Amino acid sequence: MKYSTVRGMRDFLPEKAELKRWVEQVCEKWFKAYGFVPLQTPAVEEFKLLAKKGSGGEAIKDEIYYFKDKSGRELGLRFDLTVPTARVVAENQQLGRPFKRYQIGRVYRYDRPQKQRYREFTQADIDVFGVSGIEAEFELLAISVRILQELGIEFKIRVNNRKLLEDIALESGVKKDKVKNAFRAIDKLDKIGWEGVEEELKKEKIPIEFMQTVKKNNASCLSNCRGAEEIEELFSLLKEQKLNKFVELDLTLARGLEYYTGTVFEIASENGPSIGGGGRYDKLIEAYGGQATPAIGISFGVDRLVDVLQGKKLESSLKIFIIPLGDKAGKEAIGIAEELRSKGINVETDLIGRGISKNIAYADRKGIQLVGILGEDELKKKEITVKDLKTGKQKSVSLKKLSEFLKQ
Amino acid sequence: MKYSTVRGMRDFLPEKAELKRWVEQVCEKWFKAYGFVPLQTPAVEEFKLLAKKGSGGEAIKDEIYYFKDKSGRELGLRFDLTVPTARVVAENQQLGRPFKRYQIGRVYRYDRPQKQRYREFTQADIDVFGVSGIEAEFELLAISVRILQELGIEFKIRVNNRKLLEDIALESGVKKDKVKNAFRAIDKLDKIGWEGVEEELKKEKIPIEFMQTVKKNNASCLSNCRGAEEIEELFSLLKEQKLNKFVELDLTLARGLEYYTGTVFEIASENGPSIGGGGRYDKLIEAYGGQATPAIGISFGVDRLVDVLQGKKLESSLKIFIIPLGDKAGKEAIGIAEELRSKGINVETDLIGRGISKNIAYADRKGIQLVGILGEDELKKKEITVKDLKTGKQKSVSLKKLSEFLKQ
Repeated sequence: MKYSTVRGMRDFLPEKAELKRWVEQVCEKWFKAYGFVPLQTPAVEEFKLLAKKGSGGEAIKDEIYYFKDKSGRELGLRFDLTVPTARVVAENQQLGRPFKRYQIGRVYRYDRPQKQRYREFTQADIDVFGVSGIEAEFELLAISVRILQELGIEFKIRVNNRKLLEDIALESGVKKDKVKNAFRAIDKLDKIGWEGVEEELKKEKIPIEFMQTVKKNNASCLSNCRGAEEIEELFSLLKEQKLNKFVELDLTLARGLEYYTGTVFEIASENGPSIGGGGRYDKLIEAYGGQATPAIGISFGVDRLVDVLQGKKLESSLKIFIIPLGDKAGKEAIGIAEELRSKGINVETDLIGRGISKNIAYADRKGIQLVGILGEDELKKKEITVKDLKTGKQKSVSLKKLSEFLKQ
Repeated sequence: MKYSTVRGMRDFLPEKAELKRWVEQVCEKWFKAYGFVPLQTPAVEEFKLLAKKGSGGEAIKDEIYYFKDKSGRELGLRFDLTVPTARVVAENQQLGRPFKRYQIGRVYRYDRPQKQRYREFTQADIDVFGVSGIEAEFELLAISVRILQELGIEFKIRVNNRKLLEDIALESGVKKDKVKNAFRAIDKLDKIGWEGVEEELKKEKIPIEFMQTVKKNNASCLSNCRGAEEIEELFSLLKEQKLNKFVELDLTLARGLEYYTGTVFEIASENGPSIGGGGRYDKLIEAYGGQATPAIGISFGVDRLVDVLQGKKLESSLKIFIIPLGDKAGKEAIGIAEELRSKGINVETDLIGRGISKNIAYADRKGIQLVGILGEDELKKKEITVKDLKTGKQKSVSLKKLSEFLKQ
């Protein structure tokens, strides 16, 4: 019988899993550097939480993994990390304010599987609760720049503001009850182009002046629209910290989710897909039964980042692979390896008594640069022959000085 | 409307989540130190994989989260990391041998919720494929000792061998087709005591000589039983590396899972619950359609480790919390913080313009030892007043020398 992964889900074999772990570690490192603390929530949530209006809505049932447990409870796999976090923040007033948390975890969507869309994927999220000023926006953007620079990914961050966009819509003659539809149309720009947006607007009987204004991307109302001041403050702060070159205002950016109330972001890799996004959602915590709490967050798509980095070779953390020749050397090798590890040096040894060439092939495949050959001669002299698989050079190193040698 | 976590599952609020992340990081660090590489598999698997005989079996349906997707596929949440890994290893011969992988991930069981039993929990697993010698056993035990020592947990590792135990059973007159039942009875020792085991054996018409022999714990057959040599070799290797004090032979250790074929381990914290276990399962990969492959693994219960460590305070990675007084200082603080972070120093700043005492309370609660006060006076002198919340002492530090000061 053959077994395979569930449709739309995938294994991360070692090389790809190493890239993924690296991405996650870089995210976590910078999250912590700004004072974010971890929060972890279960992958399974009550369906009523996932289906709450403003987040998922009842229609979400078609888009998630929904099931009942043996007691008939309606459950589902979480589709993002924001909704569970909103639950926690609403329930746990004792967390204090500001509350800055990060969560790196897997989420699930019952999408039609396609390129770069998986039914299980990992998000790396940071959210700030209790800060209404744009200092929070600044931190999220600064962290994004740090992470993407360390990963070596070329990127662009687009920023907009929902309040600003709403005022532009109203000034363009969009009726109040049609604003959401106008946003939904503009949100499809990447997929359907300007002509498609125009068609959508016409179908909805929305004046196309709205589209024409955002297309110009220099909103005439910038000085008196709501949200304009926030955008200006944010860009001035970004400029002071020399981060403005990574960020641009894009009036066409609406972002689908209904719950956004102010700034919205979208991060894309150069000529590539969206790798992250987020925004301000000042009403959500209240909607989940908590105290009114300003909130803003950003979510990185870890799988997307891994896809962008695909093919990148990471340096092995293993400093040396030890090849003992014969039983006596085998036991000696275990002791040598144990001592090196005690000194903080990662080392692997041959566990099955293979010959030199097979062991070298194994080490090379794992990306280990050095192998240490321990034969009878070496044992007598209390030495090890260290061969550099990159340069082909080899030299004898006294066992006493091996850790010193490897630390260089 | 109130929302809560799904029955049997739980949130990890920051303090506990930090402990959990620390446990996971210590595990991962030592896994890598011995050359283990990451593998990640989905949390959702085909039900037929989970229900395969030898691992779950059809009866597993009652013990797991089982459901169908919208196309009627029978799925389930994984109940361990061994079964999915066996699938991957069976399918991917190109991974080579030995294949040493680690996986830290969440697994799901539909158990009755009770103390220290959760329906979602995290396992940290290492497995070695392709090594039949006890060098593999040694590595798993050495890694266990490293991890538990770094976590500061007092522990004991019990070791037995299924082949040895089987021979003891046969020599004690247990019929071949009753050996499994004898194991099942002895496996309940911790729960039902010797009297309970005796009762179970009598009920099954199994000679109680078996129980009497394992109770003595110095198997007379040690020299001629299968598995005895492996045990001896393992203990001699442990002794050479001074690890024998952590490990003891325990003939009463059977471990429930049917798939074990040789060495079995169980790790318990001092006077506490089991925090890990594993063993050799040389037949499993073949059973999943792969080539015959010796295999051995150990699994740490991350939640159990976190429970044992409960209350332990970890040092914050944040070196300082900056408190600016006034708008001008606020902007200055952002620049100072950004520069410190560029130098590898984790720092948080006030984002909401609160007064000194509220900020100090916030920093103290987060376990940050130093706060830096930046008022008008300090700005003029290009200094910052650094207060140590542990000692109460404070001093002025020139902004130029702040990173140097904090690195000390």
